Amino acid sequence: MFDIAEQDPRLDKATYEAAEAVLRTDLLSMQYDLLKTADRSVLVVVAGIDGAGKGATVNLMHEWMDPRHIRTLAFGAPSADESTRPAMWRYWNGLPATGHVGIVFGSWYRSLLLESRRKTPDYDTMQALVASALRFEAMLAAERVQIVKLWFHLSRKAQSERTERLLADPDTAWQVTPDDIKVRKRFDRVRAGGLWTLAATHTAHAPWIVIPSACDRLRSVRTAEAVRAALRSPLPVVAGNTQVDDQVPARGARRSVQKTDVLSRLDYTQSLDSATYAQQLAHWQGRLARAVRGQGLGGRSLILAFEGHDAAGKGGAIRRVTAALDARQYAIAQISAPTPDELAHPYLWRFWRRVPIHGRIALFDRSWYGRVLAERVEKLIGPAQWQRAYGEINDFESQLTSSGAVVLKFWLAITKEEQLKRFRERERVPFKNFKITEDDWRNRRKWNDYNDAVCDMFERTTTPDAPWHVIAANDKRHARVAVLRTIALALEAPNQAAGRGQDVTP
Amino acid sequence: MFDIAEQDPRLDKATYEAAEAVLRTDLLSMQYDLLKTADRSVLVVVAGIDGAGKGATVNLMHEWMDPRHIRTLAFGAPSADESTRPAMWRYWNGLPATGHVGIVFGSWYRSLLLESRRKTPDYDTMQALVASALRFEAMLAAERVQIVKLWFHLSRKAQSERTERLLADPDTAWQVTPDDIKVRKRFDRVRAGGLWTLAATHTAHAPWIVIPSACDRLRSVRTAEAVRAALRSPLPVVAGNTQVDDQVPARGARRSVQKTDVLSRLDYTQSLDSATYAQQLAHWQGRLARAVRGQGLGGRSLILAFEGHDAAGKGGAIRRVTAALDARQYAIAQISAPTPDELAHPYLWRFWRRVPIHGRIALFDRSWYGRVLAERVEKLIGPAQWQRAYGEINDFESQLTSSGAVVLKFWLAITKEEQLKRFRERERVPFKNFKITEDDWRNRRKWNDYNDAVCDMFERTTTPDAPWHVIAANDKRHARVAVLRTIALALEAPNQAAGRGQDVTP
Repeated sequence: MFDIAEQDPRLDKATYEAAEAVLRTDLLSMQYDLLKTADRSVLVVVAGIDGAGKGATVNLMHEWMDPRHIRTLAFGAPSADESTRPAMWRYWNGLPATGHVGIVFGSWYRSLLLESRRKTPDYDTMQALVASALRFEAMLAAERVQIVKLWFHLSRKAQSERTERLLADPDTAWQVTPDDIKVRKRFDRVRAGGLWTLAATHTAHAPWIVIPSACDRLRSVRTAEAVRAALRSPLPVVAGNTQVDDQVPARGARRSVQKTDVLSRLDYTQSLDSATYAQQLAHWQGRLARAVRGQGLGGRSLILAFEGHDAAGKGGAIRRVTAALDARQYAIAQISAPTPDELAHPYLWRFWRRVPIHGRIALFDRSWYGRVLAERVEKLIGPAQWQRAYGEINDFESQLTSSGAVVLKFWLAITKEEQLKRFRERERVPFKNFKITEDDWRNRRKWNDYNDAVCDMFERTTTPDAPWHVIAANDKRHARVAVLRTIALALEAPNQAAGRGQDVTP
Repeated sequence: MFDIAEQDPRLDKATYEAAEAVLRTDLLSMQYDLLKTADRSVLVVVAGIDGAGKGATVNLMHEWMDPRHIRTLAFGAPSADESTRPAMWRYWNGLPATGHVGIVFGSWYRSLLLESRRKTPDYDTMQALVASALRFEAMLAAERVQIVKLWFHLSRKAQSERTERLLADPDTAWQVTPDDIKVRKRFDRVRAGGLWTLAATHTAHAPWIVIPSACDRLRSVRTAEAVRAALRSPLPVVAGNTQVDDQVPARGARRSVQKTDVLSRLDYTQSLDSATYAQQLAHWQGRLARAVRGQGLGGRSLILAFEGHDAAGKGGAIRRVTAALDARQYAIAQISAPTPDELAHPYLWRFWRRVPIHGRIALFDRSWYGRVLAERVEKLIGPAQWQRAYGEINDFESQLTSSGAVVLKFWLAITKEEQLKRFRERERVPFKNFKITEDDWRNRRKWNDYNDAVCDMFERTTTPDAPWHVIAANDKRHARVAVLRTIALALEAPNQAAGRGQDVTP
């Protein structure tokens, strides 16, 4: 891969100037096309040998293109707040909206490249980092993010000469970073690490392109050409990146008989009388309060997702939880239809942005599971899209729990009859009117479709570290206490995998 | 102010239930009206005696209103990242958009109230905090944020009894925080501090309302009534909150003769030959690079604002600065017309959000000065609005410099003839086409209006800690070196007030 680049090819001035005029015009017009159609975003990953001119290239892209629509995302060591979230958080948070170009420095290859250039790299760590990068890029590509990865390369001799030349003049010596000097001394390891990484992570939807960097002119032209190609090429074909993919059969249809088991075998008669409820509520709110206050959460965060049919009592359960919390500790996210800005990003983006730092709590009133529930049932996305979502969601939650988050997912289960009773009540009481719309009645008519989706969801996203807690909610009192108890017990067991509340897990 | 609340009035159950039904219906319908007209946002500040039920009230508001359009903003001690920005940053960052309701816990009164309840409070500190709160609220009110401030109050006896009662039961003892117990012991000081604060910060556009809190029912009803009143009342009359306020005469008109001085007495012939430029550029980029790398910025951040007529060379100057920086250190903000989301917030919001943490650099290609330049000249706002903007901007920058930011503001000055030359060039070269639009020609026809605005701006916003650096930019080389030199010198002088580059300051 590095053969040509290590011959340090050069470009003469006249050829360069001719190429520049064409490239700048092309880049600009394609950038405006991208902005107009806004059918995707373009992400340019910048990596390579230190001292090959990566920084100068970002400046060049700002000069050659319209900088108002370029977003540079440059990451070094994580800040204090960043380091308590999953490592991928900042890349998610910074994703450009459709129509825009993002340039990423210090990308998700940072740790992998650092490991790969060590004297004795740990290949297990490297394989895990490769898998993480591949999963991330596959999801982005499927979500209309065009990725191109640039590796700036030059021969050992050219790197060394460039560094020497810059060091010789006090006015340019600052351009040489300690990393540049290190590379001169251990070029072979950096080269081998790069080669291994490129080979392991070169995919059709996120290819690596090696940019010969010994000559500033050629580096500029090759970079611009690579960006132009990314702007010009159609979106890569990745399973599930079409709006509705009819090729893939819907899994749901085949198995609906066996699937309703979890919900149908639930004991919906569980209930608490008023006095027991008052006592139990106070007891479990107290235990929850003690578990989260002061240093209670310690190096952990708490993420609670509430799902359930319309009128299942999610809001009421959430308020019984927040009553035990300090308002400064938590944020409630009410998830409904995405905003235009959210639609311009991969669907998990709006949830990633709300991932709390350690010591904080996020409550989701509806969650990322909308992807495999409403979006699936209402056919807002095709089967290929919701089918890949299970794995993407498991991956998301696995990153959360690995970073120290306790993730608890609740399904508040009510019967169809109970829902009808609650809908009627909502229609009757003026200040409950706002909670009942034609949408709710429409969803109700699709009760069985939703149940199929729910059971698929349980089957595919019940994981050891983030299991589903299915709670009978025909009796609101029972449900509220069960939710509180599950959270309190999960937090009181800091050394166990979080959230294994045996009694309420399906 | 506390007379009635300290009689601990109560409400019977029947009256409460009747009131609840009316209030909930009213609150919801007004909330939807607000969302529909979206002519303002509503901010509810929650403060008062600890142990008066503030937390329960937030839960109640979520229950009685549609929680999807309420944003709770609860602040405790600042996080690591927050503490390197101005104290007001997090309140700005969290402001709800028009159409929405925000509930603020641990508001901008937090420090003031803590100081006011000390045994020997420092009245200078308190007065400074009062002034800061008043300025903030005046600006918000003028920018269509309806503010209501609630003080939850009850008698010493009722507070003490409530605390005792909760402590007596292990299941409710957790509801009593250490602060609640402290208040019991020093009720008089907390009371006096509150009284002083309320008196000092009660204004027509951001009134305090005392909520009697000994009785849960009455507290709920009074809170809901206060929020309803805020949702119902017309926007308060504050100078300059109308779109065009013709009452106030434009200051500009009267003094345009003397005002053009700064720009007309500038020596536009300053220039550098190519060789000198290369040498100077390398020299000052080197000094800047050394000043910001490693621990260079230390406990400071750097904020650079670039302004100038169209085609003055802002982008080119910015690229010469970023060439000396590490991409991981800086972010460039290209400021153009605000997005819908930005328009739904006070105009300074989009700049506040981009305030960097210590160690980082923000470059603004156009800035908050658009308020007193384009928005004034194009008559997008009325005279009252742009006239109050000077003070608001000075206050913004003063908060930045106080928090450890070095703020440097550049005006790149070109002559009308030079601009014409550059416009023609942009029309000629294909890849420069995108930089020249009908807007640019239209702006050019208003050259004198812009110059009036620029001179007003120099006069009103040149402050000791954030002066304007007016740089002759007919020769791009001269301008670029002058910009770099100004930044490098400002950073090399850590103990002086930042940014006093004598040679280029008007």
